[in-house]
Amino acid sequence: MTPAPGFPVVGMIGGGQLARMTQEAALALGVSLRILAAGPTESAARGGGDIRWGAHDDPEAVAAFAQGCDVVTFDHEHVPAPILVALVDAGLTVRPGPAALAHAQDKVHMRTAISAAGVPCPAWAVVSTPEDVVAFAGANSWPVVLKVSRGGYDGRGVWVVDGPEDAASVMSGNPLAPGVEWLVEQYVPFTRELAAQVARSPSGQAAVYPVVRTVQTDGICTEVVAPCPGLTDEHALAAQQVALRIAEALDVVGMLAVELFDTPDGVLVNELAMRPHNSGHWTIEGAVTSQFENHLRAVLDLPLGSPAARAPYTVMVNVLGGEHPDMYRAYRHVMARDPGLKVHMYGKDVRPGRKIGHVTVSGDDLESLLARAHHAADYLTGVIDE
Amino acid sequence: MTPAPGFPVVGMIGGGQLARMTQEAALALGVSLRILAAGPTESAARGGGDIRWGAHDDPEAVAAFAQGCDVVTFDHEHVPAPILVALVDAGLTVRPGPAALAHAQDKVHMRTAISAAGVPCPAWAVVSTPEDVVAFAGANSWPVVLKVSRGGYDGRGVWVVDGPEDAASVMSGNPLAPGVEWLVEQYVPFTRELAAQVARSPSGQAAVYPVVRTVQTDGICTEVVAPCPGLTDEHALAAQQVALRIAEALDVVGMLAVELFDTPDGVLVNELAMRPHNSGHWTIEGAVTSQFENHLRAVLDLPLGSPAARAPYTVMVNVLGGEHPDMYRAYRHVMARDPGLKVHMYGKDVRPGRKIGHVTVSGDDLESLLARAHHAADYLTGVIDE
Repeated sequence: MTPAPGFPVVGMIGGGQLARMTQEAALALGVSLRILAAGPTESAARGGGDIRWGAHDDPEAVAAFAQGCDVVTFDHEHVPAPILVALVDAGLTVRPGPAALAHAQDKVHMRTAISAAGVPCPAWAVVSTPEDVVAFAGANSWPVVLKVSRGGYDGRGVWVVDGPEDAASVMSGNPLAPGVEWLVEQYVPFTRELAAQVARSPSGQAAVYPVVRTVQTDGICTEVVAPCPGLTDEHALAAQQVALRIAEALDVVGMLAVELFDTPDGVLVNELAMRPHNSGHWTIEGAVTSQFENHLRAVLDLPLGSPAARAPYTVMVNVLGGEHPDMYRAYRHVMARDPGLKVHMYGKDVRPGRKIGHVTVSGDDLESLLARAHHAADYLTGVIDE
Repeated sequence: MTPAPGFPVVGMIGGGQLARMTQEAALALGVSLRILAAGPTESAARGGGDIRWGAHDDPEAVAAFAQGCDVVTFDHEHVPAPILVALVDAGLTVRPGPAALAHAQDKVHMRTAISAAGVPCPAWAVVSTPEDVVAFAGANSWPVVLKVSRGGYDGRGVWVVDGPEDAASVMSGNPLAPGVEWLVEQYVPFTRELAAQVARSPSGQAAVYPVVRTVQTDGICTEVVAPCPGLTDEHALAAQQVALRIAEALDVVGMLAVELFDTPDGVLVNELAMRPHNSGHWTIEGAVTSQFENHLRAVLDLPLGSPAARAPYTVMVNVLGGEHPDMYRAYRHVMARDPGLKVHMYGKDVRPGRKIGHVTVSGDDLESLLARAHHAADYLTGVIDE
């Protein structure tokens, strides 16, 4: 497949639902998206397109894939840095670049860099033993949060630890892989969790989205409300400024998602991601320019699109897999019940608890929007049957 | 490529931009779209997906393509009826069915059927000779509109004729292909042109979109405003009722677009199409459910999505090819000038006057929206350079 004359090819490493939704944006923009997928049941491979096969951690597969792409980007952070450095050394364009992406791959790297940039974080330390954790808790308080520095996602690799025995149990029960460290952080008694997203281009242009409220369930983002209801202007502005400062300090190109804790004393950075992010799925219908379109525009060094909201409120709720492998009957029911709902299914096989889709609804009555979105998601999962 | 368990495969015959935009909707819905394209530079083929190769008028290619599709539908009306009848006879599901589609393939067929259903049309007659045209004009008035019954599109096969010599010249200069007839119609001095779209499912559920104003330039739809400004409620309702009546009378399944003339005395049907249509591109951003999504939902017998508008006004302007084969520089400029604009490019090679994309913008200040959309389209075409 070749693009129209003069139009570029974007290579995306990873064939998950983020690649699938990026393909929707690429089709509209007229740019070509080439996707490196690991197998035919991945979400983006099920969707079809210019799919190439290979593993994201196979140097030869990635190098072959990148040939002929005008820019290479990602639907996840798991491509080993040496593979990306080799692409850059070969003269290819990788956005975000390996140095920036390192901050999304390694939480110690991230904490070190953004603390140095003056961005407010929970207290944190690198630790090696349960005794180190006890010392950290003594200087702060119990509980604390233990994290592995690399490889965690959707709540994996993160534990809330409430005492010395708990710390010892987690650390002895989860031996670290080579190159991975233990990170301990203060447990933040937050008012709510927020996310701030910014698109940033190589030239430094940035577009910041409205700050959203996120709800995590068992470590998985399950609900997003845009914009965050009840957030003070001061905290909303602070969250946006934090996202802009991180994007600039770390030289991010593409989408940056910053997950934050809102507290009475201000906002604190929890995690970050350098790609389209679950907290931004609402932007497909809820913003003038979706996070997927702005990711493409940013990595292509095209001018960014407006991140403005299109409705007073937009609610996104993730659809998790339930017990039934065939979702289609429930899908029909949900469409019949609520013609105003936007149902997104990712083409993935159902496994209990797996993110397999999301629903979005926009309007001005937040309570009603939340009820509609949760009903649909629960019905699709099979938690409710009417 | 296989869909997720329980999810269907839709086959679309034709690889143009309508198939490409339907693919965007299919990716979001989680259904699989398989596209029969004629060659690798077609819009949908450039976009990628589950592309199969073959001509829409090759019986064996179409039959092979249809195997394994849960339903077969179209991005144009040009598939010969015998090919579709053979699919139905083989037990395959074709929507709209060949009997319904015949009304979109043959203007005489259409005029006969909707006149019988009591739908208001311009005066019309089947003619064979210039003398027949003169007789028709005598009973009505000059000018009249001469049309070939089959095979016209984007203004081809349609002539405004203002006297006997003109009629003789058109008819002698355009010999008819076998099975094609001459149709003469009263020229309607319309106030404006309208389009009314309706999605209809096999079970008869229908969803009707707001009535839009269209502007045709040299027979090509170049501008759409949704909803039509200044249209009386009476005429808007009449246009919607005409669309609903035609959909039911002709047993349409999928999207139906009805192009109408608005006159001081009421609305009259001009043309119709049974597929997503240029007059509905505004629905991608401007309606809760796009025409592409509702076409898929209708042909799959899924409940239809809301056709409600999402903004006071949405303006769509087509981008036509100009002299420059490489549009990318102009594309960058347009994005830089107006971050709120939605630019859709179809991945097609540029030829002067060819539809290669469209731009859409929503808001409440119609004059400003029109200016923004036309500036962008003109700049992309190359008609203006600042």
